[in-house]
Amino acid sequence: MIYLNKEDILESLASYEEIMEAVEDAYKAYEIGNYKMPSRLREDMGQNALLLMPCINAQGLGTKILTVFPGNSAADKPAIDGVMILNDMATGEPTAIMDAKTLTALRTGALGGVAVKYLANDKTNTVGVIGAGTQGFYQAVFACSARKVKVLRVYDNRPEVMDSFIGRVRPEIPYDVDIRYCQSAEELLTDSETVITATNSNRPVIPDDEELLKGKCFIGIGSFKPNMREYPESLFKICRHVYIDTYHALHESGDLITPINEGWIKKDRISHFGELINAKQGKSVDTILFKAVGMALFDLFAAQRIFEAAREKGIGQEIK
Amino acid sequence: MIYLNKEDILESLASYEEIMEAVEDAYKAYEIGNYKMPSRLREDMGQNALLLMPCINAQGLGTKILTVFPGNSAADKPAIDGVMILNDMATGEPTAIMDAKTLTALRTGALGGVAVKYLANDKTNTVGVIGAGTQGFYQAVFACSARKVKVLRVYDNRPEVMDSFIGRVRPEIPYDVDIRYCQSAEELLTDSETVITATNSNRPVIPDDEELLKGKCFIGIGSFKPNMREYPESLFKICRHVYIDTYHALHESGDLITPINEGWIKKDRISHFGELINAKQGKSVDTILFKAVGMALFDLFAAQRIFEAAREKGIGQEIK
Repeated sequence: MIYLNKEDILESLASYEEIMEAVEDAYKAYEIGNYKMPSRLREDMGQNALLLMPCINAQGLGTKILTVFPGNSAADKPAIDGVMILNDMATGEPTAIMDAKTLTALRTGALGGVAVKYLANDKTNTVGVIGAGTQGFYQAVFACSARKVKVLRVYDNRPEVMDSFIGRVRPEIPYDVDIRYCQSAEELLTDSETVITATNSNRPVIPDDEELLKGKCFIGIGSFKPNMREYPESLFKICRHVYIDTYHALHESGDLITPINEGWIKKDRISHFGELINAKQGKSVDTILFKAVGMALFDLFAAQRIFEAAREKGIGQEIK
Repeated sequence: MIYLNKEDILESLASYEEIMEAVEDAYKAYEIGNYKMPSRLREDMGQNALLLMPCINAQGLGTKILTVFPGNSAADKPAIDGVMILNDMATGEPTAIMDAKTLTALRTGALGGVAVKYLANDKTNTVGVIGAGTQGFYQAVFACSARKVKVLRVYDNRPEVMDSFIGRVRPEIPYDVDIRYCQSAEELLTDSETVITATNSNRPVIPDDEELLKGKCFIGIGSFKPNMREYPESLFKICRHVYIDTYHALHESGDLITPINEGWIKKDRISHFGELINAKQGKSVDTILFKAVGMALFDLFAAQRIFEAAREKGIGQEIK
């Protein structure tokens, strides 16, 4: 059995594209249905929570154990922590344990990256990220991996975090890119054709202004609970189509629950992103929203890819 | 974060009594109700299964991930494997990972040991164990830890395993004990006042003979599924009382489901073992059955005790 910490995981990967490929494999398995994914188990402890996310595919089985302790941020510790356990398919033996913070960050970044690859119009090369936290970082890096981005903009309502954000993103992008932070979401929208939101907001972080939103590709990462929302009413009115990473998103994200309940969007304009990958249909120039909440199937495919790469390179701490 | 393998776990413990104390603490918490134990999540894969057993008590939280692959036995590998993860209560961070095979074996052994302590008549000092597998080993060792045993008998329908069983048990008992194997369950019952069953049987391993059973203390460990049974009809007819380790046992074990459905025993003669511990009532000379199926609360208390002991002694592999 090996243990892979953050550095091991990053060192194992030849490129961010490997995780995007794993996410695409997960989408394909979701469409085919050759997997088993029990409902995730969530146990709340006041504002904190324990999440268990098991999944089984043709290659093996795995369980992500995640703790969500929002108060950690005040103590400068990550709010999300945990481990991913992989088990051998033939014997059930645990084969690998890896840091679930990094796994979650990478596969969520890859969800955004794959969305950029399939949804953002080929001619566009400007990306804006709202929310300069850990996930915003990975969204920026994966977007720049999925597409050669010329202009990258970032906005966060905590001005002090944006400088360090740019400093961390720049070395991760292997080509020249014009990175700058904006003074407002409006400014960011003016400069960006693809807009990624990765905040913990309970109310829209995107202005409720059709003119600013029209024709853009939006990627919603933040809202993973019913009371969380990043997108305003007007987006749903002009949005040609909404793609979701899993059907659970319809019941988990306030960015879908509210628009459906309020009648801003009909369900026939919402479909699973996996259909798009399989259909290989052309990209649209219309306004589009991709909304992700994540699922254990992504973690399993990503973790298996990481473990495989680590084993090939002899990376990881042996546990015995 | 530290990792504790089998040797680390055994080395951390000053004695088997520490695990029995942890099991008693779990019983007390169960009675008071100051814990959270979501239903265990079980995902079947043909004859194999993945089990997730989370639990939260006042001291922290933990999850046991267990795989049950019965076919492993043929390949001389353990059928049960997995890890236990402990998380810090204040931050959610994983603090320890330990071998769940050893943890499960120890806490199940301790369930038997605590039952001997509270249920077996003080004047008795003869113990018989049916089933000479891993769990039979721990049942024998814990029984001899709970009580100064003079006569220890073992029976298994695979004669070839009994010699090695005795060879492994003897050095674990810090005093002289007359250990011998029997040719049949009948012979074992004749010699033993406390009888522990730890088999995977689907039909009674105890003879259906009131005279042989009368006045004895039975400890049923094996039957953890509805189709598994170790005890015959006549036991339930003469049995004064049945104690269970958790109310789930009523729906999980064939040794309770069948007797209740068949009307061999009424539910008012079944109660939770924790009540007995709190009441500190005297031991009976009547026929009694203790039936255990296990629960995550035992794992959590036992794992916390092991982790504490390991930390004090500086035992375990550091994972970082």
